[in-house]
Amino acid sequence: MKIARTIAEARAFIAELREQRRGKDAGNLVGFVPTMGYLHEGHASLLRRSRQESGISVLSIFVNPIQFGPGEDLERYPRSEEADLKLAEREGVDVVFLPSVQEMYPEERKTTVTVTGVTERLCGASRPGHFDGVATVVSKLFNIVKPDKAFFGAKDAQQVAVLQKMVNDLDMDVEIVPCPIVREEDGLALSSRNVYLSEEQRREALVLSRSLREASVRIENDPNATPRRIVEDVTRAIQASPIAEIDYVEMLSFPDLEPLDEELGLTNLRKAGGSVILALAVKFGSTRLIDNAIMKLKEAPLHV
Amino acid sequence: MKIARTIAEARAFIAELREQRRGKDAGNLVGFVPTMGYLHEGHASLLRRSRQESGISVLSIFVNPIQFGPGEDLERYPRSEEADLKLAEREGVDVVFLPSVQEMYPEERKTTVTVTGVTERLCGASRPGHFDGVATVVSKLFNIVKPDKAFFGAKDAQQVAVLQKMVNDLDMDVEIVPCPIVREEDGLALSSRNVYLSEEQRREALVLSRSLREASVRIENDPNATPRRIVEDVTRAIQASPIAEIDYVEMLSFPDLEPLDEELGLTNLRKAGGSVILALAVKFGSTRLIDNAIMKLKEAPLHV
Repeated sequence: MKIARTIAEARAFIAELREQRRGKDAGNLVGFVPTMGYLHEGHASLLRRSRQESGISVLSIFVNPIQFGPGEDLERYPRSEEADLKLAEREGVDVVFLPSVQEMYPEERKTTVTVTGVTERLCGASRPGHFDGVATVVSKLFNIVKPDKAFFGAKDAQQVAVLQKMVNDLDMDVEIVPCPIVREEDGLALSSRNVYLSEEQRREALVLSRSLREASVRIENDPNATPRRIVEDVTRAIQASPIAEIDYVEMLSFPDLEPLDEELGLTNLRKAGGSVILALAVKFGSTRLIDNAIMKLKEAPLHV
Repeated sequence: MKIARTIAEARAFIAELREQRRGKDAGNLVGFVPTMGYLHEGHASLLRRSRQESGISVLSIFVNPIQFGPGEDLERYPRSEEADLKLAEREGVDVVFLPSVQEMYPEERKTTVTVTGVTERLCGASRPGHFDGVATVVSKLFNIVKPDKAFFGAKDAQQVAVLQKMVNDLDMDVEIVPCPIVREEDGLALSSRNVYLSEEQRREALVLSRSLREASVRIENDPNATPRRIVEDVTRAIQASPIAEIDYVEMLSFPDLEPLDEELGLTNLRKAGGSVILALAVKFGSTRLIDNAIMKLKEAPLHV
């Protein structure tokens, strides 16, 4: 496993591997998993997928300052290079790109990649500028690594939607591969930020996955479910926790992230076989957690 | 010479040529000249440079709607595919990419590449949104063609500065190569838009290159020349034409395009060996022409 700390090294290592593995079927395809480090089993699942589907597997670890807003957790974001490198080695990564902030932003940056529309709601509304920072750094990373496929976790569902739109609009020659959310046994979605949680907060945070699961069952089985009723159910369940502070609970079309028609309930979407996302962001103390469920709607079962 | 009308064709043709020419020194380097067509000798000079420096020479012709503002000349912008293809053939182009608007913008575009700073003055100020359109389409074209070098005319000096900044900031793996302005024998800078000019306008338009030439001589030889005096000279010369309507005449640092210190004249810049640009945009009837002179300052000669 090679460790590149500069852009030039990363390019050279990847070019060398591409050259060595030429002609071996898809042996010289590059799979890429961009992360902010402090890797957990969710990241490991992305790396396994990348290893399976690509001859060359690349991981980047970079806590990207421009996607954090003022007052967010940039300073305390957890880091553990040694453990990350061990996990990467175990998952068969070929090249780890570990740049410094100075390496990524050596001069005053004047260029921004902006995606409108899909960024207007959910985290885009709560964290102004966040997705500009994400789209800009991912553009840079794609230009450095030149991957054929890039793997992203569905926990950051809006991020996946934003990056897919960016790739389409700018004709980037890379396939965005969304991968399922990985959860603890008790349901909590894995996140590097879970480490911030106290014991009580960790216990209370289970309300997120539980309420999403219950809502999914209702969406699947209750022909009278409307977006508003589903959002009300989830909101009520979360408010029952004395320490949960809701940022948003929203149900939108997926991947467009547009509001659903309340009047029509989910009937038309069911007929069209559309997909919806039920997404939430909730604070426990100073720790903000996100989770979601994406569902492809089927025609509601008849009650006979 | 291959003609690609779709993104998929362009990618396939270029990949095939890269494969064929592997291992032949720089034989599989891709040189790229993006244009809006109606090609003239200025474009031909870029294509010759591309041919000399790259094993594979690619030309794109696309009148990009998103870089035109309301009321600008998108509808009447001159086109002549047949003559363009002849010129391309003559200049040894390997692949011409000639997409339709539908091919380049098949769905509602939500992604924009924005460069601030260098876009605040000159054409960036007169044509709001113009450089967003340029940066966005050039990003797309770079992602399609994946050039090693891209050649641009210095007539659009601000465009070169914007694209160089974009390439630096986003770590695009392409070298921007600015090429000298090509002029008619009488001095008029070549432009596809010169075809709009009446005989009288064509004659009066000579004031642009003449006043730039005179100013360059003064900057080189007059130790008391200040940016303000130079701009006043050029403005006065152009205003002497009864049909010239000035959009801007500005003298800025190059390539940062920042205002020069009036107090210090050019003294400090001369000492630092900095570069300046004297740039102008002037309308003759409904036709807007641009021209410029970029000068590396040398210490002023002593008067003995």
